[in-house]
Amino acid sequence: MLIGVDAGGTSTRAVVLDSTGRCWGVGTGGGGNPVALGPAQAGRGIGEAVERAVRMARAADPGHVDWGTAGEPLGAAVLAMAGASSFMAPGVMASPITEVCPVERVEVVSDLIAMFSSGTPAENGYVLVSGTGAAALRVENLEVVSAADGLGWLLGDVGSGFWIGHRAVRAALAAMSGHGPATALAGLLRKELDLPASENRTPRGRLMALETAVEHFYQMSPITLSKYAALAFQAAKVPDPGDSGRAAEAHFSPDADAVAVEILTSAVDRLSTTLRAVRSPRLPGPVVLGGTVARRLPGLIDAVSASFTADDMDAPDVSIASDGAVGAAVMVLRLAGVTVDDAAFARVSSTLAELRR
Amino acid sequence: MLIGVDAGGTSTRAVVLDSTGRCWGVGTGGGGNPVALGPAQAGRGIGEAVERAVRMARAADPGHVDWGTAGEPLGAAVLAMAGASSFMAPGVMASPITEVCPVERVEVVSDLIAMFSSGTPAENGYVLVSGTGAAALRVENLEVVSAADGLGWLLGDVGSGFWIGHRAVRAALAAMSGHGPATALAGLLRKELDLPASENRTPRGRLMALETAVEHFYQMSPITLSKYAALAFQAAKVPDPGDSGRAAEAHFSPDADAVAVEILTSAVDRLSTTLRAVRSPRLPGPVVLGGTVARRLPGLIDAVSASFTADDMDAPDVSIASDGAVGAAVMVLRLAGVTVDDAAFARVSSTLAELRR
Repeated sequence: MLIGVDAGGTSTRAVVLDSTGRCWGVGTGGGGNPVALGPAQAGRGIGEAVERAVRMARAADPGHVDWGTAGEPLGAAVLAMAGASSFMAPGVMASPITEVCPVERVEVVSDLIAMFSSGTPAENGYVLVSGTGAAALRVENLEVVSAADGLGWLLGDVGSGFWIGHRAVRAALAAMSGHGPATALAGLLRKELDLPASENRTPRGRLMALETAVEHFYQMSPITLSKYAALAFQAAKVPDPGDSGRAAEAHFSPDADAVAVEILTSAVDRLSTTLRAVRSPRLPGPVVLGGTVARRLPGLIDAVSASFTADDMDAPDVSIASDGAVGAAVMVLRLAGVTVDDAAFARVSSTLAELRR
Repeated sequence: MLIGVDAGGTSTRAVVLDSTGRCWGVGTGGGGNPVALGPAQAGRGIGEAVERAVRMARAADPGHVDWGTAGEPLGAAVLAMAGASSFMAPGVMASPITEVCPVERVEVVSDLIAMFSSGTPAENGYVLVSGTGAAALRVENLEVVSAADGLGWLLGDVGSGFWIGHRAVRAALAAMSGHGPATALAGLLRKELDLPASENRTPRGRLMALETAVEHFYQMSPITLSKYAALAFQAAKVPDPGDSGRAAEAHFSPDADAVAVEILTSAVDRLSTTLRAVRSPRLPGPVVLGGTVARRLPGLIDAVSASFTADDMDAPDVSIASDGAVGAAVMVLRLAGVTVDDAAFARVSSTLAELRR
C-alpha cells in the first residue's frame, strides 16, 4: 500500500494507491501544515484525510492487497507540505499517518515539487503556482534550483488570489467614492458586505458605505482579502472550472466588466513575468500551472507560451494541476522504486479523477 | 493666553501665543491621539507638550500677560487630532491641558483642518497630505466637504511614506534576487538589516539574504515599512529639507538612482491624481501640501500646478506645512474671536519658526 498526502494550510488530501499507479481511495481533511497550524492541529487534519482515503480503498477492494489490517508495516507514504525543508522534525508528522495505517517509511517532501509532479511525469521543468500566494520555480532532477516570488502577501505573491482580491476591493472602493472608473465590482462588494445603499456622508467628507467597508477590512487579517478574488472572477464572467476545468485556456466574454478583466489580465502578465525570472534557455519545459487561481485565469496558457516564443524558445507543454494530490501519489510511487512513465502518470491522474467525481 | 495643540500618533506639538498671533512658547511631547493610544497615554503626551510650551512662554516673558499662575481660567485652547469628529468625549481630552494651565475653553478640531490652516489663512482651498498615510481634502468654510484616499496602508494611502517604503523594499528584494533592475536600494537595505553578503542559497532556491529579509518583514507590523521610505529618498539623493525646507520645489540630481527616482516620481503623480479627485472648478485654491513626505517630494509643487492648468484652471498658490502646529495656533486665534488676516498668519508662522530654531 502506498499513501500520498498533500497537506495544505486549509485542507489536506490523501490518496491510497497500489504500485501500478491505480488509485483506490481518496480523502480530505482539515489543514495539515505544522508550520502554520502547529503539529497537533496539522496532525489531526492529516490523520482525518488518511483515514478517509484508507477506508474508501478498503471498501472498494478489500481483497486486492493487504491494507495493513494485520498491523505489520507495509508500503510507504509521502507527505507533501510547504516548509518541508525547514521543518525540524519530519518524524513528528509521520505519526498521524502511521497511527491510522502502518507503513514502513514516511518521507516529507516539498509541496511545490508535488504540485509540479501533479502536472507532469517529467523530472525537469517549471511550475508556476497561483493560489492564495504565487511563485515560479525551476525544477531539475525533482529539486527546486531557482525560485521567483513566493514572498507572501505583503512583499510579493504578485498575480495571486490575495493580489487579485486586494485590487478588486480597491477598485470597488474607488468606484463607490466616484474616484475611479465604474465597475460591477462595487455592486458585488456592496452586496457581499451588506453595505448601506444611501449616499450619506461622514463629517470627514466620505460616503458612509465606504467608511463601513474600510473599517470592515481593517478588522480582518489582511490575507482574507484573497477571498475577494472571487468577485473579480465573477465580474469578469469567468466560469468556475470545477476540479477538471481548464479556464486558463479560455478567453473573456465580450460583456465582461472591463475593470475586473484588467485586473485578471494584469495578473496573467505578472505571473508570466515571474515565470520568466526562473527560466533557462537550456530547459524547454514542461510548465505546470498550479493552484486554484492559475487554473482559472483566462489566457494564462497562451501568455506563458507567448513569453517562451518571444525569447526564441519553443512553446512549451503546459498542463494544469489544481492541487498536489496527483503529485504526492506520483512521488510515493517513485519512493517505492516504480518508474513513473507517461502511462503510469496517466493511470494515477485518471483513476484519482474518477474517485473524486 | 491661547494654546494650540497638534496631537499626532507619534508626537504632539503645543504652542502658546497671545491674541496678536505672537508665539511665546513651543513644546513637544509623546503621541497624543486617544483613538490610537488610549486616553491615558494620549493625555500624557499632550500634557507634556503643553507643560513645556507654557514653561518656555513664562520664561520668555513673565510680565507680558497673566499666564494663569493665579489659577483662574484665562484664554482658550484648540486640540487638533485625527478622529476628532468620531471621538465620543472630547471633554476627556481637555483635562491634560487644563491640569497644566487653566483655560476657559478647549475645542477639539480636525488635524486635517489644522494642517490646512498651517499653510494658509484662507478658509477655502485644498490640502494634500502625505506622511505615514496620504489623503486629499477640499475645505470650504474650514470644513472638509470632500475627501479622497486616506484609506490606510492596506487599501490606499497612495503616495504615502508606507507606499514609498513598501515599493522601495520590494525593489530592493527584486534586485537582490536578480529578478528586477539593479538599484542602490538593495545595498541600502542590506546595510539597514545587516544581511549576510554571501550568495548562499536555501533548499527552496532562494538567496539566504533574501529569506532573512523576508522573515524580518513578516515579524514586524506592516506599517513599519513606512520607515523604509527614507531609503528611497537617500538613493534618489533628495536632501533632508529640515523643518523649514522646501524640497517639493527641488528636482532630482542627475546621478540619482533610477529605481528610487521612479518610485518617488510615481508617488508625485499619484498624489496629484488624489488631489484632482476632490477638486472643484469653482475653487481655485490655495493648496497646502502637508506631512513629512509631501514636503520632501521633489517636483510635487510643479505636478500639482500642472494638474490644475491641464484642466484649464489657473496654477494655484501652493504652500507647505510640515505639521499642524501653526494651524492649531491659527485656529485658537479664531476661537478667541481674532480675524486671522495675512499679517496675523505671517506673525504666527514666523514667531513659531523662530522659537523652533
